[in-house]
Amino acid sequence: MSVRTPDPNPGWLPEFALDETRARVPILYVEAVPVRVDSHGTVEHIGVLLRGSSTTGEMTRTLVSGRVLHGESVRDALLRNLEKDLGPTAFPQLPTSVVPFTVAEYFPFPGVTPLHDPRQHAVALAYVVPVTGECNPRQDALELTWLTPEEAAHPDVLADMEGGRGTLLKQALAHLGVLGA
Amino acid sequence: MSVRTPDPNPGWLPEFALDETRARVPILYVEAVPVRVDSHGTVEHIGVLLRGSSTTGEMTRTLVSGRVLHGESVRDALLRNLEKDLGPTAFPQLPTSVVPFTVAEYFPFPGVTPLHDPRQHAVALAYVVPVTGECNPRQDALELTWLTPEEAAHPDVLADMEGGRGTLLKQALAHLGVLGA
Amino acid sequence: MSVRTPDPNPGWLPEFALDETRARVPILYVEAVPVRVDSHGTVEHIGVLLRGSSTTGEMTRTLVSGRVLHGESVRDALLRNLEKDLGPTAFPQLPTSVVPFTVAEYFPFPGVTPLHDPRQHAVALAYVVPVTGECNPRQDALELTWLTPEEAAHPDVLADMEGGRGTLLKQALAHLGVLGA
Amino acid sequence: MSVRTPDPNPGWLPEFALDETRARVPILYVEAVPVRVDSHGTVEHIGVLLRGSSTTGEMTRTLVSGRVLHGESVRDALLRNLEKDLGPTAFPQLPTSVVPFTVAEYFPFPGVTPLHDPRQHAVALAYVVPVTGECNPRQDALELTWLTPEEAAHPDVLADMEGGRGTLLKQALAHLGVLGA
Repeated sequence: MSVRTPDPNPGWLPEFALDETRARVPILYVEAVPVRVDSHGTVEHIGVLLRGSSTTGEMTRTLVSGRVLHGESVRDALLRNLEKDLGPTAFPQLPTSVVPFTVAEYFPFPGVTPLHDPRQHAVALAYVVPVTGECNPRQDALELTWLTPEEAAHPDVLADMEGGRGTLLKQALAHLGVLGA
Repeated sequence: MSVRTPDPNPGWLPEFALDETRARVPILYVEAVPVRVDSHGTVEHIGVLLRGSSTTGEMTRTLVSGRVLHGESVRDALLRNLEKDLGPTAFPQLPTSVVPFTVAEYFPFPGVTPLHDPRQHAVALAYVVPVTGECNPRQDALELTWLTPEEAAHPDVLADMEGGRGTLLKQALAHLGVLGA
Repeated sequence: MSVRTPDPNPGWLPEFALDETRARVPILYVEAVPVRVDSHGTVEHIGVLLRGSSTTGEMTRTLVSGRVLHGESVRDALLRNLEKDLGPTAFPQLPTSVVPFTVAEYFPFPGVTPLHDPRQHAVALAYVVPVTGECNPRQDALELTWLTPEEAAHPDVLADMEGGRGTLLKQALAHLGVLGA
Repeated sequence: MSVRTPDPNPGWLPEFALDETRARVPILYVEAVPVRVDSHGTVEHIGVLLRGSSTTGEMTRTLVSGRVLHGESVRDALLRNLEKDLGPTAFPQLPTSVVPFTVAEYFPFPGVTPLHDPRQHAVALAYVVPVTGECNPRQDALELTWLTPEEAAHPDVLADMEGGRGTLLKQALAHLGVLGA
């Protein structure tokens, strides 16, 4: 009979088990592009996360992103990762349909697709998520900046995106009808 | 030089002009399925409009629906028609993308598609729109009822939908992942 | 009893009636981006139409485009316009769903959206259509060129697109996952 | 230096490793609904697989389905599984976009969603795939039957679908605009 207290995060894996798993199957992720919209649903600002490396001091940009855990629904994973990266007062409006605007494929070896993740083969369902509240990333190293669609589409911003996510961000802007000419 | 006061609704047409136009080209509509969602974006209730005929007393069900006027954007048309049918305090969350979940084609002669509109050939862009406020249809003859997905999918409800919109409602439920087995 | 022969193109309108209608309601169009795909469905080439003006000699680029006629379904309009612009041996593979990858809104006055049509307010349902046969535009002034995604995304190509359709072409490339970084 | 011959299926896992992995993370699948279409892209027939159990003799119905292997793209997985279940002469027309028509979530415990897989937590990207050639499932126990949309939507057919896939099939029919009233 087990006398252990229940695991508070049953979907989480010890590091060695996650590493082993990453070598075996593609890992399912969700990604979110946080946006501010006007009353017509037109996107006015895009939220991009800025992450400072504690060792190199280098800055990279990224989107809300995280694994879908074992036993967790896609919606639960999306909400949990939004809260993890934007804080508890962001008030995200989750999509009514689980159909993503794109499926992003990250391979551990570069060059297969524009997207790349040295840790693993990851497949991410990507969503646009309007947020209406205050966004305060819970991790110290993370900061959220709001960019206009024009600013977000700037080659410098796109080039700073981690793992080739500039491509993903452009797909989001195109899907939203704000990519420009 | 014109001394007329500006037309407050420049997109509106006198009845005879609209009738003539309806015989010439397909008329562009927007339709909306109002929904109530939980914090995960899962749809809990579907808003269906109930319309009583003043002459026959017969009740029919319908969705939010209206023309796109000349010079009006699809988003503006969607917001205007939501306000017309749900009142000014419905607080609809308009979609971030103008891609509809389906395109509904209504022909003036029955049998071509399940959808039918004796007045005209109409093509409607259909959207799901979460609303968070109070819905009070501005027309006396109209009433909004909130149904669970199971209730909305009931054959009696679907059969009552005007112009064959039961098909459209089922498409919305399927798109939302709540159509059931 | 009518003794007239049936109208061979009942949806067509005399020029004056079309002009009048264009001033009254948005006109519904379909647009298609013809593509060549490999066995995995990945897009290898994009078909762009090149049109020479007989008076100015100027060249502009465009996509397959045309009206939805009164009484005509969206699918019929798409097939008819593909045949009109690509010839009878193009063998287009029409989409199984009528949901467009985007809805393009053209206003008669510039600046409202990147898209612009001086003749009218037009709303176009836009589709990607793989073609497997020979494409021979039936109009003398039209020529089809096949571009790689990289070539199609070149600013010079995008700037040559009629009515601001460079934006639309970029949306298609993003939707297909071949827009690049 | 390795003297082993290269692994012909590097993404495949020994049974025990797959079982272990299934207890750790959601497993990514692709599913396909094979269809026959007319020249307008309208779906005329739906391909449903019939599987006989060698032990019980019971028949169940299913769709084309299989894992995405480590290092394999979604498109490659889709093509490989179509060939596995429909044979080498099916000539599937793969979608030009990797956006699925729905994301199907199967949990190992029943009741969370209509979909259920006792072996694992699986998340499937679901696509509609027109096929133009001869379909001959390579496994003896499998047979492909072509159903009209009306036949496919029959409650008896839907109830026979493995793992609750009747829901998924209805979503496909709704997406294709052939679910009926």
